Amino acid sequence: MKKIYNIAVVGLGQVGIYLLNELNNKKKSIEIKTGTKINVVAISAKNIKKKRKFKINKRIFYSNPLDILKKHKVDILFEAIGLSDGISKKIVEKALKSKVHVITPNKALISKHGNYLAKLAEKNNVNLEFEASVAGGIPILRSIKEGLATNKISKIYGILNGTSNYILSEMENSNQKFNDVLIKAQKLGYAEPGNPKLDLNGFDAFAKVRILSALAFNSKISQHKCLMEGIEKIELKDIKIANQLDLRIKLLGITELKKNQLFESVHPCLVNKKSYIGNVNGVMNAVILEGKPVGESILQGEGAGPGPTSSSLLSDLLSILRGNIKKPFGIPFAQLKALKSYNINNYTNSLYLRFEVRDRPGVLSQITNRLAKYKISVKRLIQTPDKINKKATIVIITHKTSEINSKKCLSIFKNNKNILKFPTLIRLYN
Amino acid sequence: MKKIYNIAVVGLGQVGIYLLNELNNKKKSIEIKTGTKINVVAISAKNIKKKRKFKINKRIFYSNPLDILKKHKVDILFEAIGLSDGISKKIVEKALKSKVHVITPNKALISKHGNYLAKLAEKNNVNLEFEASVAGGIPILRSIKEGLATNKISKIYGILNGTSNYILSEMENSNQKFNDVLIKAQKLGYAEPGNPKLDLNGFDAFAKVRILSALAFNSKISQHKCLMEGIEKIELKDIKIANQLDLRIKLLGITELKKNQLFESVHPCLVNKKSYIGNVNGVMNAVILEGKPVGESILQGEGAGPGPTSSSLLSDLLSILRGNIKKPFGIPFAQLKALKSYNINNYTNSLYLRFEVRDRPGVLSQITNRLAKYKISVKRLIQTPDKINKKATIVIITHKTSEINSKKCLSIFKNNKNILKFPTLIRLYN
Repeated sequence: MKKIYNIAVVGLGQVGIYLLNELNNKKKSIEIKTGTKINVVAISAKNIKKKRKFKINKRIFYSNPLDILKKHKVDILFEAIGLSDGISKKIVEKALKSKVHVITPNKALISKHGNYLAKLAEKNNVNLEFEASVAGGIPILRSIKEGLATNKISKIYGILNGTSNYILSEMENSNQKFNDVLIKAQKLGYAEPGNPKLDLNGFDAFAKVRILSALAFNSKISQHKCLMEGIEKIELKDIKIANQLDLRIKLLGITELKKNQLFESVHPCLVNKKSYIGNVNGVMNAVILEGKPVGESILQGEGAGPGPTSSSLLSDLLSILRGNIKKPFGIPFAQLKALKSYNINNYTNSLYLRFEVRDRPGVLSQITNRLAKYKISVKRLIQTPDKINKKATIVIITHKTSEINSKKCLSIFKNNKNILKFPTLIRLYN
Repeated sequence: MKKIYNIAVVGLGQVGIYLLNELNNKKKSIEIKTGTKINVVAISAKNIKKKRKFKINKRIFYSNPLDILKKHKVDILFEAIGLSDGISKKIVEKALKSKVHVITPNKALISKHGNYLAKLAEKNNVNLEFEASVAGGIPILRSIKEGLATNKISKIYGILNGTSNYILSEMENSNQKFNDVLIKAQKLGYAEPGNPKLDLNGFDAFAKVRILSALAFNSKISQHKCLMEGIEKIELKDIKIANQLDLRIKLLGITELKKNQLFESVHPCLVNKKSYIGNVNGVMNAVILEGKPVGESILQGEGAGPGPTSSSLLSDLLSILRGNIKKPFGIPFAQLKALKSYNINNYTNSLYLRFEVRDRPGVLSQITNRLAKYKISVKRLIQTPDKINKKATIVIITHKTSEINSKKCLSIFKNNKNILKFPTLIRLYN
């Protein structure tokens, strides 16, 4: 007789309900592909009555997910609540301790508690799978753990937040300001209606970067502070100027080993408009991996939404049903390295600096003198007058300089009557 | 004690020797990732004395690979000879029957005998892995079998032959003719020095399409005839005209279900110069997959060369070492469908037609009348005179028409004194 796996789905928001429907529809195909049967024995959410896209079976509904493990012999639990702590952490912890496999798209949870939970899963000899936590439907984690398993990876970067990418693309296409496009994104369901902050300030992409680092470099998830900037300060003006310079602004997540030290960052980048990454637009995600011997590999796909997320959740399910017991980070927890953190002060880039200044004699030389003092050399300078308002915009593209140097150099412009706002800084992608 | 797997490598050409070196260098990392040890116990090639990039251990060398299985307890055998039959087939067959796992990059073998060999592997409960047979280092087969496992795939297409793609790109970049660029490609190692025919006539890409179809549609490898054309007839003139039309010529491999029937093809396509696929240049490979619920997924990477190929071969090895016994085509052989073949006559495309004609009155109307008779409507027509030679080039972009219709329509131009050569036909990508 075929083995039957009992499944619980906790959290019935957009993702959870879509997943539940997929589980029901794909029973037969899952049986063919794995030789096992699945049976959804319990579901849980805050509100049984909430209007959902698909009907739920109320007889297997629990308002407290912790009750499920008491009442059922569950083999696999999907956590789709999405908190970094609280009930999300509690139910995952409880499940692993009860020798229940866990599958989750929860990047906040994994990037914060991944080390602890991976250890727990390993100790209890069950899987903790989180393919859907990074780049939606793109099978990037599985590719690092399996398809590219023996490569020495030196760097991974990409567009990891669909909301930010949509907003940047749409500002350029529609010529609209940040706030107007944000409202549009919320209406279309591309941005959280309540609080889209975690998408826009880089936090969401950063959580994904942390997970990618651990897999790519066989290391524990780092908790060091690093460079995290979102797109909130990007103005339509910057997008237009970038366009004139044949550049485009993208929010990139980057993780790399620099002198064997880990450098993780998320920040807006100016990339060549003709480059591959410069042409990944809208809600698309893309991940670029540099490894030896494989060379440069690119994976691109839809980075969010219940469909792509379910695709990844189900791939995790199949992996478990096929009996592929695997370490959450590909190798035994005890073998994971604790990498030192690269000093952010030494991070070096060409910079785009935009100054809004009063149109007075001597202002330009104040700026260029200051740059010269810090040995930041100018590659390109464009001054555009705004005669009516007696203002001017000065855009400078610099040669490479370090974070600490540019920070010190620019600090003086905080209190300068001729400089109307603190200069906008966007790094160029190397 | 850790289990030790005995490994044999058969075929020590570019790929085999690189793989052997990787196996030696990565022992430790493989042990960490899988908890098992590997030991290369035997190697084989035609010529022990051939000059190779890395030194070989002559004490474990066999000139007849079949002897290896008699003298050693081998667990895993790499076949890197590359023939579709002969000794390649013999050694793989023998190994599977002896309950030895087989890993191969040999697309000719798998596309021809994959059904039989998969059945044999399944019967003997060993793995037959061939990730490296399609698109070099891109983990596309594993992604279909695992990372995107429960998706309903409707279509896969892409650039599957690096040699052809390099030649097309280089003709455009260097403004050189096909034969000159071919010689350059051979010098650079991108095309076979002796007989590059299988890369250029579409055969290599077609073998990959067949393997992709089987995995994507859970079907047996088809042996039906289908549409296979290479790049041999592409002239620099076509590349230049395409460029003027904002198009670019790419050799695409395409497999899709049309009315539940399988349609496989390899042929040059005109694609939009601004499209993603239009910008995959040089020796790069790219695979685009359309599935539900994941949407469009793209995987891009180096499609050939010993490095990327070894990356895939080692991913197969790790899968076996981790104990992931899997069906070669993802599901049990008995469950694989035998798909009907879509009638190629009904394949429908817009066409690019180039006529080289004598510059005489009435020639253009002969052509347009003929097209009109077959209801092929003209979207665009460009006539360029060559007064010195009293000739003209007529390029026509048509609206969509079927293969059978265009074939019948064009047949008349075989014996027309005013038409100097049979018209060049390139399909536009839909």
